[in-house]
Amino acid sequence: MCHADAMSANDSICVLGLGLIGGSLLRAAVTAGRAGFGYNRSGGTVAAARAAGYDADSDLSAVLTRAASENSLIVIATPVTALDSILDAVARYAPGCALTDVISVKTVVNQAISAHGLSGRYVGGHPMAGTAESGWTATDPKLFTDAIWAVTTDDDADPAVWQMISALALDVGSMVVPIATDDHDRAVAAISHLPHLTAAVTAAVGGGEGALALRLAAGSFRDGTRVAGTPVPLQRAMLESNRPALLTVLSDTIDRLTRARDDLRDAGSVQVVTDEGHRARRRYETMATGEPDPIVGVEIGAPGWTGDLRHQAHLGRVWRG
Amino acid sequence: MCHADAMSANDSICVLGLGLIGGSLLRAAVTAGRAGFGYNRSGGTVAAARAAGYDADSDLSAVLTRAASENSLIVIATPVTALDSILDAVARYAPGCALTDVISVKTVVNQAISAHGLSGRYVGGHPMAGTAESGWTATDPKLFTDAIWAVTTDDDADPAVWQMISALALDVGSMVVPIATDDHDRAVAAISHLPHLTAAVTAAVGGGEGALALRLAAGSFRDGTRVAGTPVPLQRAMLESNRPALLTVLSDTIDRLTRARDDLRDAGSVQVVTDEGHRARRRYETMATGEPDPIVGVEIGAPGWTGDLRHQAHLGRVWRG
Repeated sequence: MCHADAMSANDSICVLGLGLIGGSLLRAAVTAGRAGFGYNRSGGTVAAARAAGYDADSDLSAVLTRAASENSLIVIATPVTALDSILDAVARYAPGCALTDVISVKTVVNQAISAHGLSGRYVGGHPMAGTAESGWTATDPKLFTDAIWAVTTDDDADPAVWQMISALALDVGSMVVPIATDDHDRAVAAISHLPHLTAAVTAAVGGGEGALALRLAAGSFRDGTRVAGTPVPLQRAMLESNRPALLTVLSDTIDRLTRARDDLRDAGSVQVVTDEGHRARRRYETMATGEPDPIVGVEIGAPGWTGDLRHQAHLGRVWRG
Repeated sequence: MCHADAMSANDSICVLGLGLIGGSLLRAAVTAGRAGFGYNRSGGTVAAARAAGYDADSDLSAVLTRAASENSLIVIATPVTALDSILDAVARYAPGCALTDVISVKTVVNQAISAHGLSGRYVGGHPMAGTAESGWTATDPKLFTDAIWAVTTDDDADPAVWQMISALALDVGSMVVPIATDDHDRAVAAISHLPHLTAAVTAAVGGGEGALALRLAAGSFRDGTRVAGTPVPLQRAMLESNRPALLTVLSDTIDRLTRARDDLRDAGSVQVVTDEGHRARRRYETMATGEPDPIVGVEIGAPGWTGDLRHQAHLGRVWRG
């Protein structure tokens, strides 16, 4: 049985699921000098990972037994739809290991972790990186370089586990954003899940106009619909598992588009919607192009540490260790 | 007085408005070996163009008088909001010159051209190229390379003028899509103007969540909101001058998002919207990455030539001369 509080002596990670994110993480962690091994259900993916020189296996119980014996940090990188069966196995074979995930929603993962009695060793994660591609062949050990890695920072977080998860994110080149579970899901609904739906609808409306219209499509359509090309099952797994938060921002979006339509119809103007969009985009560009300010003065585990981290993250700061 | 039917002996162009599109066109045409000169209202832009070695002036009547004497093809590249005053001057100083424009809507331009009695020498154009930047400093002589250039192809088009406009587009590296005026406006409403509105709303919803959410924003938000950064006056000029067509696709978009919201709320599913978006995006990618088939077997000016061009363009083909 592994014990997370002995982790300072062990940097081994066990990645469950070797798709774009999990596979890239295994490659990035090994590139960063960590020990690591992985599991994937598909023998083809395991063979591809092995051919690339990585330690991978399709026997989940064997992989988890090894994780327990090596005191590994377990990273769940499967689709959210596979979560329950994965957690059954984790609870059976490696219940004492520190545990995180890279799934793009956090509330439903938290609930599943709790239902399996694994909350004490768990801190959630979500690297904000990806492409419209998927699978081992799309993996890239530099995928996380300079990316943002959200790490759940609720009041009951175990400081040692939190530091282990954050250290992994920092090791692969990312910056950590500490965030409450519900804040995370609301934020990603707005800045990740909603853009998938607006891209899908924009693509569908353009496509509905036929080949002539698509022939005229240029930069605004190309960029604005890019993520509609993400495989549908991946999109559904993400979006449908964040239903309450996504419904809220989606209704907001419909209201804003309806106001824009009414303004255009009644006053011939799109000033309000383009002004608001322009302001928000400029604000984003300023944040995205500048170097983020670091979170300072917080000792992990000291009284109030989770609230202090969250407060500074709300100002746009990031944790760099 | 110039005469367009003598154009085969003259490749001079006169560009009115030296912003991103007009300035890039002057540079591209001169680079392609044509004679060219331009007008801009702003002395600063004229000075910048001159400093870069181009023939530019801020005296509109002088520029147009020269265009008439040199038998130039006049290209209107001002914002649509300046169209009436520009056409007043064209009608006064160079009413016999062949005339086109690069404005992103065609119905309102057609109406203004007609109101100024210039329809006989006019064929409209719209290069599907641009960036979120604007002004002379953003100009690029390669802006039109491999771009699509829509050329209006209504039944009353003058074949000689049509060929002059198309030849200019081909000379600067573009492919020509022959299209009816109303089809053009409906198509660009869907594949260009609507993406500006969905980008604006997506940016505004994300921005409304604050610095923490924007800090998590990654590729889907970055690409999906890019064109919201276009200067608001340029967006308003484009979108507001295409009101009827834009209202139609915007209402379609609101309906589709509302159905997606209802599906998500009532059945927990985003399958329909993501399926439709994915299919349209893949269709676009197939068209955008493949080499377009050429329009064949049409002799410009032969009976039925406009309908023949439009029919083949509806299949996704392009005119290469």
